[in-house]
Amino acid sequence: MQLGIVGLGRMGGNIARRLTKAGHACVVWDRNEDAVKGLAAEGNTGASGLADLVARLDAPRAVWVMLPAGGPTEATVTELAALLAPGDIIIDGGNSFYKDDIRRAASLIEQGIAYVDVGTSGGVWGLERGYCMMIGGAKAAVDHLDPIFAALAPGRGEIALTPGREGRDKRVEQGYMHAGPAGSGHFVKMVHNGIEYGLMQAYAEGFEILKHKDSTALPENERFSLDMADIAEVWRRGSVVSSWLLDLTAIALTKDDTLGDFPGEVADSGEGRWTVMAAIEEAVSAEVLSAALYTRFRSRQEHTFGEKMLSAMRFQFGGHTEFKK
Amino acid sequence: MQLGIVGLGRMGGNIARRLTKAGHACVVWDRNEDAVKGLAAEGNTGASGLADLVARLDAPRAVWVMLPAGGPTEATVTELAALLAPGDIIIDGGNSFYKDDIRRAASLIEQGIAYVDVGTSGGVWGLERGYCMMIGGAKAAVDHLDPIFAALAPGRGEIALTPGREGRDKRVEQGYMHAGPAGSGHFVKMVHNGIEYGLMQAYAEGFEILKHKDSTALPENERFSLDMADIAEVWRRGSVVSSWLLDLTAIALTKDDTLGDFPGEVADSGEGRWTVMAAIEEAVSAEVLSAALYTRFRSRQEHTFGEKMLSAMRFQFGGHTEFKK
Amino acid sequence: MQLGIVGLGRMGGNIARRLTKAGHACVVWDRNEDAVKGLAAEGNTGASGLADLVARLDAPRAVWVMLPAGGPTEATVTELAALLAPGDIIIDGGNSFYKDDIRRAASLIEQGIAYVDVGTSGGVWGLERGYCMMIGGAKAAVDHLDPIFAALAPGRGEIALTPGREGRDKRVEQGYMHAGPAGSGHFVKMVHNGIEYGLMQAYAEGFEILKHKDSTALPENERFSLDMADIAEVWRRGSVVSSWLLDLTAIALTKDDTLGDFPGEVADSGEGRWTVMAAIEEAVSAEVLSAALYTRFRSRQEHTFGEKMLSAMRFQFGGHTEFKK
Amino acid sequence: MQLGIVGLGRMGGNIARRLTKAGHACVVWDRNEDAVKGLAAEGNTGASGLADLVARLDAPRAVWVMLPAGGPTEATVTELAALLAPGDIIIDGGNSFYKDDIRRAASLIEQGIAYVDVGTSGGVWGLERGYCMMIGGAKAAVDHLDPIFAALAPGRGEIALTPGREGRDKRVEQGYMHAGPAGSGHFVKMVHNGIEYGLMQAYAEGFEILKHKDSTALPENERFSLDMADIAEVWRRGSVVSSWLLDLTAIALTKDDTLGDFPGEVADSGEGRWTVMAAIEEAVSAEVLSAALYTRFRSRQEHTFGEKMLSAMRFQFGGHTEFKK
Repeated sequence: MQLGIVGLGRMGGNIARRLTKAGHACVVWDRNEDAVKGLAAEGNTGASGLADLVARLDAPRAVWVMLPAGGPTEATVTELAALLAPGDIIIDGGNSFYKDDIRRAASLIEQGIAYVDVGTSGGVWGLERGYCMMIGGAKAAVDHLDPIFAALAPGRGEIALTPGREGRDKRVEQGYMHAGPAGSGHFVKMVHNGIEYGLMQAYAEGFEILKHKDSTALPENERFSLDMADIAEVWRRGSVVSSWLLDLTAIALTKDDTLGDFPGEVADSGEGRWTVMAAIEEAVSAEVLSAALYTRFRSRQEHTFGEKMLSAMRFQFGGHTEFKK
Repeated sequence: MQLGIVGLGRMGGNIARRLTKAGHACVVWDRNEDAVKGLAAEGNTGASGLADLVARLDAPRAVWVMLPAGGPTEATVTELAALLAPGDIIIDGGNSFYKDDIRRAASLIEQGIAYVDVGTSGGVWGLERGYCMMIGGAKAAVDHLDPIFAALAPGRGEIALTPGREGRDKRVEQGYMHAGPAGSGHFVKMVHNGIEYGLMQAYAEGFEILKHKDSTALPENERFSLDMADIAEVWRRGSVVSSWLLDLTAIALTKDDTLGDFPGEVADSGEGRWTVMAAIEEAVSAEVLSAALYTRFRSRQEHTFGEKMLSAMRFQFGGHTEFKK
Repeated sequence: MQLGIVGLGRMGGNIARRLTKAGHACVVWDRNEDAVKGLAAEGNTGASGLADLVARLDAPRAVWVMLPAGGPTEATVTELAALLAPGDIIIDGGNSFYKDDIRRAASLIEQGIAYVDVGTSGGVWGLERGYCMMIGGAKAAVDHLDPIFAALAPGRGEIALTPGREGRDKRVEQGYMHAGPAGSGHFVKMVHNGIEYGLMQAYAEGFEILKHKDSTALPENERFSLDMADIAEVWRRGSVVSSWLLDLTAIALTKDDTLGDFPGEVADSGEGRWTVMAAIEEAVSAEVLSAALYTRFRSRQEHTFGEKMLSAMRFQFGGHTEFKK
Repeated sequence: MQLGIVGLGRMGGNIARRLTKAGHACVVWDRNEDAVKGLAAEGNTGASGLADLVARLDAPRAVWVMLPAGGPTEATVTELAALLAPGDIIIDGGNSFYKDDIRRAASLIEQGIAYVDVGTSGGVWGLERGYCMMIGGAKAAVDHLDPIFAALAPGRGEIALTPGREGRDKRVEQGYMHAGPAGSGHFVKMVHNGIEYGLMQAYAEGFEILKHKDSTALPENERFSLDMADIAEVWRRGSVVSSWLLDLTAIALTKDDTLGDFPGEVADSGEGRWTVMAAIEEAVSAEVLSAALYTRFRSRQEHTFGEKMLSAMRFQFGGHTEFKK
């Protein structure tokens, strides 16, 4: 089927490629002209702007917006809404905050336009492996787009089906899921990313404990010099902590077990923050997900005001001098 | 080759079975006579006691102790040491504290007995899938036991080799690793379990946030009723959070997505605690691993003294009455 | 001077009392007629409704709203705004979210009405000890209300002045502070409460560790049976952890060191949550303040879905049976 | 009465001074001869070594050891034990690990020597304000030393007695407490310091949130530029978070509200670590005390291996480039 795609970065471009390969017809646009030309050369139809993109699609139209969350997505959705007609569908495949989805869907439906939010996991590996998708929106629109989702999803592959799933939604087994009304797709993806932060931090802390087992602060007969890359590799094979993130960790550690190329200043996207905020709204204790987020905050600072205050208090009550040299 | 096995519970019994299937000759003993009889009927040699077990092995003997950490393991290692001769090997395959391994190895080597500690991951699935093993001890002893480890390990299987491993230790690719001197096997396994706690807690918090998204405390248009089992299943397929623990979670949620059979009082084994203590000794910040441990502590109490103290303070300063009804 | 007071609960009533005692003239109203009658009998002027209250004040009028944050405060501020005239002042002395203050102040100033937000600490002890106040709003309005604030504040008392404060704002030394524009008063109060959660939790954890030092899980020669009330009392005298919260803790523990009247289900007001959300917005790591909040969330549940999931995973990989009895 | 004091640093020297001022006779020694000379000039008797110090005391002798915990204290206690006679008392006033106290007391009592452990809080202010003391040891020895403790303690002063204490141990009201058998004094002091870490961290996080409320990452109308020193000062006066630590914070912030002299690398003494370890032994959830400890660990590192691992994983799955510049 036909699909318009706006935003041809790392994710949007690969989505177009995967769809084209599966026989779908993509009309693509990006403010970066080279990206449009590149994809046009790969069999997609390049558009010269949003209006042109809309004009090149047959009704009912479906346009996938794959842009940074916040301003860029908001502006594009608004502009598209003015160009589209009742019966058309806007898909937000980025990382929007789910409350923005709820608001947009409620507003667009008044114009007869359906809004579908798709949380997409798989990163740079998605082109090859397929994308795991969590989808929110009205049933009719999600069903209409099914060929698109089926082509983007990884499919059953070699991953065994969980026992007892007989008779349940087949789409889930292909790697995509209609989670509920608009916003629910990005909500599930948001929590997915919150969990991802937690998993990453669990590995990071564990490997740091392994790494520093050779610390001279320890008694000499209790020190071990451990091989980080071998540990990651062996755990991939039959252990309880095996996972895709561990596979990736093994790749990084095998390349350079000092990880010397990375300074250790770790970015955070909105989803980690929103997950903690959702936990607070629901009065759910989310110690691990919060701690994982805070570690990233801390990683980007040299020293915090709070730490200086600790030193200042220690100086006041104990005469401990932790002064600048 | 020949191996003595002491302790025929869930783990020890399956280890004997997997070794016998691979053509090794196991002499087994347990204080539970039925366990001995059962394994004897499956082709192992049953012994009537530790002395008998030792007598039935040819020198140099190797005895695998698979008992609960602490008292039972300590007593058996001590008793075995008195029965064995220089050149023999004691293997502790349980979950001993690595400092106990260091102490035991130093003491046994004075008698010429080698001590090998094996951290074993794989749980009840190990019989079929093989065991991931982290091994500490002197090189000669570990090399001597290689046929045993090779038979217990999962082998390469379908898990792709990490790029760049060419020329590195082949055993690691089979799922077992000689980590270093005595104690290092259990140390790596200990951190493995610490990470396991963290991973489990990350999923647990995430699913709890998903579950309570239908809370009536939320604005009505922001509530979703989400399908826990479908979410677990879809994330197994192409998402960043896919893992073996998620596979197992999907099994549990597909069977009963309320998890109503489980009261939620979660045990902790020594390794989670020791991992946090190791972090403190090394001055490593282990927020996530600690929080995962503390959640288990808290899960086993009705209400804590600390929580009552919070209520008491609130009553004192604010007149807030959080009294017993 | 004259002040209207709306909301005569524990806080509003005592504020009227303290002001009357200081010679100010309060016109009071509450939807609870008995509360109005009671305060009228103590020398305040009772009003029969908001309109009557406004009518009984001379311009420029000042009305102190002391109601639960959210709906009740919002409704009253809106209603008052319709009754008041340019030059009048609305004071929100409750625990409003500071972003609501910012919004309200921006809206009211278009009508010429000033909005002042006052974060008030001191609890049920404030009548006697005075209230610590953190004030946000335009300078003219805050200055106009100074006699009110001065009467409510504790005053210098016996608390020594911090060295180096010569020449700084004298109001601060009396226990009240003009923090900045509208919203800043409640923001500072919000963080105050976030810190309060953290301090309370630090004591709660410490006393719980002291309490359980007699646990039979410990080696017999490492057990102590410690006197909670004596420890609280002795720490009030010269120790680094002395504080007003500890004074209150000592009162509670001296009365009943089992705290048996308190079930341990601890409420949380909005401010603890908002503080964590503010930390996230600012990318500040707030481990302790979050943990203190989460402990309260957890205290109000029997068992969490997350904990059941941990048991379910343990059953899946290890055969650990943590089933319902 | 007579007291030997070994270790004349910041704490030991002031203890001698406070005792001499109260009419007690101190025999002092330190390996630093100038410290001995200085205190001799202030009315104490200087000794030339441990043997000389013991020789200058009348039986039953009491010697207060005020040295760094671990090696120095252990060596001195051992040496003293060889010089003393049955009926004598060794007092460890430092920050020893309470399990060392239990061990030493059990060993010394075989020689008839009593061992008393004194946890001492008050820091550099103790000379003037007195020391809060938590004492462990046999009743006879603690009672014998009462004149010493009474002179070191702050006394009742102006701190009101907690209601309901009538008929309870009067020593507690003077600021010292016989907590229980040997080790219990240092155990209570250890938890005291654990709480201290938590309290400090709560303030530190709160002030950091206040400080960064002017961050340009926030919407412009939600930014406040707040006065740190004024906030600390106002909270000292009637607020729920008033405490001695806040008094000290106010001093530091009034002097320099940027705290620019402090780099923010915060040391930790053993007691914070031991408190968390005690919590783990007792299966008590100690989120806040752990987080406070971990913050200090983290403050002393530039970037952690764990943080680099997070970047490495992000690069692997998302192509996120957080490389070294």
